[in-house]
Amino acid sequence: MDQQDIAQRLVEIGIALSEERQLPKLLAKVVDHSLNFTNADAASLYVRDRDELEFRFTRNLTLEKRSTDNQFTTFKLPIDSRSVAGYVALNKHTVLIPDVYNRHDSLPFKFDDSFDKRVGYRSQSMLVVPIIDNLGQVLGVLQLINHMHNGEAEAFPEELRRPVEALAGQVAIALRNVVLVDQLALSQRETVYRLCRAAETRDNETGNHIKRISYFAHKLAELRGEDASFRELVFDASPMHDLGKIGIPDAVLLKPGRLTDNERVIMNTHAQLGYDMLAGSDSALLEMGATIAQTHHERWDGTGYPQQLQGMRIPLEGRITALVDVFDALSSPRVYKPAWPLEKVIDYCTEQRGQHFDGELVDTLIENMDDFLAIREEYADEFDEDEGEHSIITPAIKKPLN
Amino acid sequence: MDQQDIAQRLVEIGIALSEERQLPKLLAKVVDHSLNFTNADAASLYVRDRDELEFRFTRNLTLEKRSTDNQFTTFKLPIDSRSVAGYVALNKHTVLIPDVYNRHDSLPFKFDDSFDKRVGYRSQSMLVVPIIDNLGQVLGVLQLINHMHNGEAEAFPEELRRPVEALAGQVAIALRNVVLVDQLALSQRETVYRLCRAAETRDNETGNHIKRISYFAHKLAELRGEDASFRELVFDASPMHDLGKIGIPDAVLLKPGRLTDNERVIMNTHAQLGYDMLAGSDSALLEMGATIAQTHHERWDGTGYPQQLQGMRIPLEGRITALVDVFDALSSPRVYKPAWPLEKVIDYCTEQRGQHFDGELVDTLIENMDDFLAIREEYADEFDEDEGEHSIITPAIKKPLN
Repeated sequence: MDQQDIAQRLVEIGIALSEERQLPKLLAKVVDHSLNFTNADAASLYVRDRDELEFRFTRNLTLEKRSTDNQFTTFKLPIDSRSVAGYVALNKHTVLIPDVYNRHDSLPFKFDDSFDKRVGYRSQSMLVVPIIDNLGQVLGVLQLINHMHNGEAEAFPEELRRPVEALAGQVAIALRNVVLVDQLALSQRETVYRLCRAAETRDNETGNHIKRISYFAHKLAELRGEDASFRELVFDASPMHDLGKIGIPDAVLLKPGRLTDNERVIMNTHAQLGYDMLAGSDSALLEMGATIAQTHHERWDGTGYPQQLQGMRIPLEGRITALVDVFDALSSPRVYKPAWPLEKVIDYCTEQRGQHFDGELVDTLIENMDDFLAIREEYADEFDEDEGEHSIITPAIKKPLN
Repeated sequence: MDQQDIAQRLVEIGIALSEERQLPKLLAKVVDHSLNFTNADAASLYVRDRDELEFRFTRNLTLEKRSTDNQFTTFKLPIDSRSVAGYVALNKHTVLIPDVYNRHDSLPFKFDDSFDKRVGYRSQSMLVVPIIDNLGQVLGVLQLINHMHNGEAEAFPEELRRPVEALAGQVAIALRNVVLVDQLALSQRETVYRLCRAAETRDNETGNHIKRISYFAHKLAELRGEDASFRELVFDASPMHDLGKIGIPDAVLLKPGRLTDNERVIMNTHAQLGYDMLAGSDSALLEMGATIAQTHHERWDGTGYPQQLQGMRIPLEGRITALVDVFDALSSPRVYKPAWPLEKVIDYCTEQRGQHFDGELVDTLIENMDDFLAIREEYADEFDEDEGEHSIITPAIKKPLN
């Protein structure tokens, strides 16, 4: 490989890796680019998890050609000198082995031949590099096997050592950025949840209502084929739908029984109030929150509030939230009513096709009812107050979205 | 330069750039590394702003040696063929000019010699590369001047073209990541503000109160020499101090006049309620919000609530918020009282040294009163309701923190 090409390719790989915002896809990309860059036959990627290395992704081109089942299961290795990956992570330097079965080095680990035996593969040469970030922390280990030349496995040339270390530097940057952005996005998601849930406590709305709304809305968007950006926004913004209720006096918000017409007018201002609280920022999240707050009580037939928008004039996120908000209210038990039986919920939604709701959304909901019931079950309300909800919320909002 | 070294250095530069989270520092780093990497005598960096290029940073080593004043002012160029930087941005390809005063190329722009004339410099060779991200968007232009060899300016060698383009690819990644993280952090900041402000509207707390609290708390932390991470957290978390008031009934929260003992007990639960709403997450922001909610009514002498913590047992963020919350309440006009005169506020805070407040914090506040008065003035309450607050909040929270 031309040496100028090495620089160019490394940087191209860096750019390709930096595009990827999802960790599993990033790991796959790292392995693919590494195979390609080094002419290796196989590559495995370990990611550090505290004191261990977790085996996260692998490819083996020979086994793929043979259609040998190369389904891998993840496992963890301690960071110590008993394995080559552990050794590399511990000592933070690259190991290059011409033939793992005929070693003349004094490195302390033994080669584990169980994989070769099990699948009938012959590992020979290895190039194993630590993935180290700019603070000197080991983030993982990249293990390359069998440098191919004219169809034969050869030793990895010494000249590949530095370029592969440079590649590992690129991987470190990309990994660190994905983790950083993930943490920020999760922190924002959790912040919205906590603050919206705080607002919901006033009218004794159950803690999991807004969580179900998020998952329902996300699922509907996904079933309609909306893109990831819309799906994530609607997930994060839909909990804000009732934020405007903060501005409704206790006397109206908490009144038992039927509201008078005048009280109803006051109550209905919550849609516009929520919009006013959230609108006018540069944040796409707050903008969608504002739209949802404002439009989640509009009706398909134009008889909703506050703007009497009709049909497709109601933004998709508003139509989605309108449907899932009612669906959740009907199908969940509340203090003042049991959950409706599923058939009755379905009948009601069907009856409201083209009246209250967007008919296509109703169809999607009903055709995929199992998905929605699974969400309802997973985020069912806990009536045991003693348990506290922190332990429930935290893992729930961390679940990766599809 | 050894060709393998080029790969290694490029990747090292990529790593160095990726460490930098602040845009101005990143721009300076890009220029420094570019000079070093190419043996250029001068370098300028343009950053794209919609249809224009903004001249954001420059260095000229010869002028620095001569101690010529090289203070630059930023300016903007259109993206068109009338300037070399505009041409490069427009056409997305590199331009290499051996001598700008003796050109044999057919490129459409003229060389602007006004800078050379003004400072007595002789620009000769140029290497100008677009900074292009993975989506093919131009983020900026890097302009290198005078490739030095044995003290003489020479043409940039053709062999530098691809490595410098590769370098520009690294710059694009770093720029994009800084912008992405900034946007996420700003979005989170604005989300917290909007949701906390929504909560504050219930007891007619003025819209700018929580904004002033943020800036006051940040300033106190800065004056104490706390690190950037603490300063930013206390800025973003302090607006949550009264979040627990969402759980206080209107009858108590909005009661005009004095609360009965029993009502006071209910009102005081807001500290613990706020903690319960925010605590138990992995987010450092929510954790600090929880701590501030819980401890901002503790008193240095141990007579506060809810835990009667004393002195240094009260976390710093709680001691800071306690002081600035009272300082703001006293020194701002409220519906039911005018602002106290500054002397009276200072007397009160001094009197409460070691009783209500941490004495050291009081000293810091009083010694730097001008800083706090400037914040109070900048974020004074708008009593004109018609103006709406969106236009006020948005720029305010975007101001970079020192």
